[in-house]
Amino acid sequence: MRNLTMLTDLYQLTMLQGYLKQGMQDRRAVFTMFFRHAPGLNYAIMAGNEQFLDYIENLHFGPEDIDYLRNLHLFDEDFLRYLKDFRFTGTIDIVPEGSFIFPGTPMVRVDAPLAQAQLIETALLTLLGHQSLIATKANRVVRSAEEDAVMEFGLRRAQGPDAGLYGARAAVIGGCDSTSNVLAGQTFGIKVAGTHAHSWVMSFESEVEAFRAYANCFPDNALLLVDTYDTLASGLPNAIKVFGEIRAKGGKPLGIRLDSGDLAYLSQEARKMLDEAGFPEVIICASNDLDETIIRDLKLQGARIDLWGVGTKLITSADRSAFGGVYKMNALETDGVLLPKLKRSDNPVKVTLPGHQELYRLYDQDGMAVADLITLSDEVIDEGEPLTIFDPQDTWKRMTLTRFTARKMLVPFVKDGVVVYEKPTLDQIRAHRKREEQTIWEQHLRLIFPTLFKVDWSHKLWKLRHDMLHDAQGRHI
Amino acid sequence: MRNLTMLTDLYQLTMLQGYLKQGMQDRRAVFTMFFRHAPGLNYAIMAGNEQFLDYIENLHFGPEDIDYLRNLHLFDEDFLRYLKDFRFTGTIDIVPEGSFIFPGTPMVRVDAPLAQAQLIETALLTLLGHQSLIATKANRVVRSAEEDAVMEFGLRRAQGPDAGLYGARAAVIGGCDSTSNVLAGQTFGIKVAGTHAHSWVMSFESEVEAFRAYANCFPDNALLLVDTYDTLASGLPNAIKVFGEIRAKGGKPLGIRLDSGDLAYLSQEARKMLDEAGFPEVIICASNDLDETIIRDLKLQGARIDLWGVGTKLITSADRSAFGGVYKMNALETDGVLLPKLKRSDNPVKVTLPGHQELYRLYDQDGMAVADLITLSDEVIDEGEPLTIFDPQDTWKRMTLTRFTARKMLVPFVKDGVVVYEKPTLDQIRAHRKREEQTIWEQHLRLIFPTLFKVDWSHKLWKLRHDMLHDAQGRHI
Repeated sequence: MRNLTMLTDLYQLTMLQGYLKQGMQDRRAVFTMFFRHAPGLNYAIMAGNEQFLDYIENLHFGPEDIDYLRNLHLFDEDFLRYLKDFRFTGTIDIVPEGSFIFPGTPMVRVDAPLAQAQLIETALLTLLGHQSLIATKANRVVRSAEEDAVMEFGLRRAQGPDAGLYGARAAVIGGCDSTSNVLAGQTFGIKVAGTHAHSWVMSFESEVEAFRAYANCFPDNALLLVDTYDTLASGLPNAIKVFGEIRAKGGKPLGIRLDSGDLAYLSQEARKMLDEAGFPEVIICASNDLDETIIRDLKLQGARIDLWGVGTKLITSADRSAFGGVYKMNALETDGVLLPKLKRSDNPVKVTLPGHQELYRLYDQDGMAVADLITLSDEVIDEGEPLTIFDPQDTWKRMTLTRFTARKMLVPFVKDGVVVYEKPTLDQIRAHRKREEQTIWEQHLRLIFPTLFKVDWSHKLWKLRHDMLHDAQGRHI
Repeated sequence: MRNLTMLTDLYQLTMLQGYLKQGMQDRRAVFTMFFRHAPGLNYAIMAGNEQFLDYIENLHFGPEDIDYLRNLHLFDEDFLRYLKDFRFTGTIDIVPEGSFIFPGTPMVRVDAPLAQAQLIETALLTLLGHQSLIATKANRVVRSAEEDAVMEFGLRRAQGPDAGLYGARAAVIGGCDSTSNVLAGQTFGIKVAGTHAHSWVMSFESEVEAFRAYANCFPDNALLLVDTYDTLASGLPNAIKVFGEIRAKGGKPLGIRLDSGDLAYLSQEARKMLDEAGFPEVIICASNDLDETIIRDLKLQGARIDLWGVGTKLITSADRSAFGGVYKMNALETDGVLLPKLKRSDNPVKVTLPGHQELYRLYDQDGMAVADLITLSDEVIDEGEPLTIFDPQDTWKRMTLTRFTARKMLVPFVKDGVVVYEKPTLDQIRAHRKREEQTIWEQHLRLIFPTLFKVDWSHKLWKLRHDMLHDAQGRHI
């Protein structure tokens, strides 16, 4: 396992030395990670917990790290000695992987000595942000493909090896069926899949020889790429010829792949030709810079595509290249008491929520999610009593729930430095994502003009924030 | 060093088994990598060679890899035995890191046994594509900042650890001055830099105490973040107070950072306040979702910013999330003869160039680049003779060079499996990039409406391609 301890911003270390100098390093601090509402991120899929856990378990500075830092001439020996014994001894709660999460809600809550809670910020945001971004994008793509399978095959366009590897993992959490990435298959047990390249066809004297050679090699797994020369005039007739040959030999023709041209028209024509030739079971796979918008549009046009190969735009989340997660301080021990903290800002959406918080998802009698409710952690939700929730901005918008269940979304991850999270398998995470998806109304998940899922705050939290903002001195001009 | 051999698409391996079954695996094949013209990619900076070389040197399948592949039930024992001894024995030529490259020109030429040339495609595109993408984006940002320094600090928003680590390396190749990424500093010797976070300020009773504690800890390196509460009413006065204190103690106040609000207005006001308080040397750093367009606009508005901190949009190349490099077969040995190959396509820009190619950059007497010229490798450019070049599409557009120099852009990298490339240091690569930048006219590099740099083909190459396309059978309807 790679030690990612040094995968941090320099300012985390300069702040740590500052905290140590002030004797503040062990003051109890509470931080949460969350994301803000943004186009394409009205909901997200939680992912990356496993890699974040690996990071926390392995967090330590080796002698070569200390030496490197010493040579920067920024740090003193007291601090370098402190780093030598640095371990994470705090408590982390987290939303399980594969869960649906909404803007502004705590995805992770860290309750730890100040220096520790601060240091882990960068890696936490990198690891959870990247995978949550790709899982979310994949989910949008998979939802646009409705019942069809989606294959992730963006490795060659990924932003480096990790982006390909962990991106494939996240894509599967989001709903992809398989990946082309062999390392991801090996590392995570994901189903691997693929076809062949244009260069395969170009390596043979003729297209039909290329198809024949490939199909003979993989009689039950040949997905023939039919657009190297001319899809309808050459690719399809040659593929049909070879499918006939392998069926005659007891093989089971799998399908064709379209990688260019008018995918709606070509897939309809290909379907006709395949059906007429007696291959109604042969599937049509399509690729070529696809994303959720194009897939949805192709479906509206009546494209006859069974399997979607999605590369660049999924593995890089092309229309939104970063998750934009933030990690903010909510409380800090002062003179032995944990005091709530918030960050003010001229921009109201950037004002944070104070205090040690809990996140509940509220469900109706049918098990459908109604709203998320952020409370202070010392509040109790009594499912036996009516519960009135209200919009934190437009407070006159309120709703009273009488028969509901409330589920705590943050689960124990690390307790006093000890891992208490049982890593689920990827299959379990996928199953969790599927179950969760059933509890969220379609209108919150749709691609355009979704209804925003309610994220409310308890009255006590709302009042705390309100009072803290009003108590702060206004500007004098 | 990580073994990235399995970082490949499944289809590379299925094709390899196919080639082996056909006895084609050792046929000599020539491939090139290039990129196509696209918005924001009218030029690019070559980067990633070092990591690509590490990959090639380390290319082998371990026993656990073979076991994994066996368990997929796709591959036969002959093939798995072949993989056990698989090594790269071919020849690779490459454009040096830090070079300016243009659409359609070979960045890498691979001349190797077919199976080997094919297998390396995925990792080659991932490694070179990612770093060239980020180096290019960084160069655009740095150029927009004119003489000012640019700090890369996007790690927390990078698409995974590698994207942060190698992205920082690429950013420095493109022209960034420093990174916040400690691991990148340690791994590549890049200058690390940073400020402090809002959470630092929130950890103290008051802003001035927070500034004082930080500045006392780093008297010569304190870049104070002044926007936690109110930039002009609180942040600046407090920073100025603390700067006075550290100067009185013999420290050297460094600067302030603005991270929100109207950066043009705030920087102008901050400059005035700092100057009036006797700190004309104190620098102003700005951040907040910056990119080349915003920086350029802030400069036009007269913003007084000396140092730009650029995060998300640089490290993810937000407006263009993938380099889109492709790797195409140009020639294949057939019956002992190396025959040119091209990929046809209904889309003319997707038709490839055939043959074993060489890339020359042509310079005028002043050392300025005039055009790139792609030739077949057996052609000789005689600098003593006039050279007429022409536009490959609009062939009536021609130009004759009488006094020019021609430089071969592809340099030896791996020869018959042996590394022949001396890895330059990052400083050498940066210096190379700076020198190269002096040879390219400004109009080719500007952000909007650049004049496209000429990329021409020799007459022999042009004719080969023309004849191959015309010889192919047209469609019959």
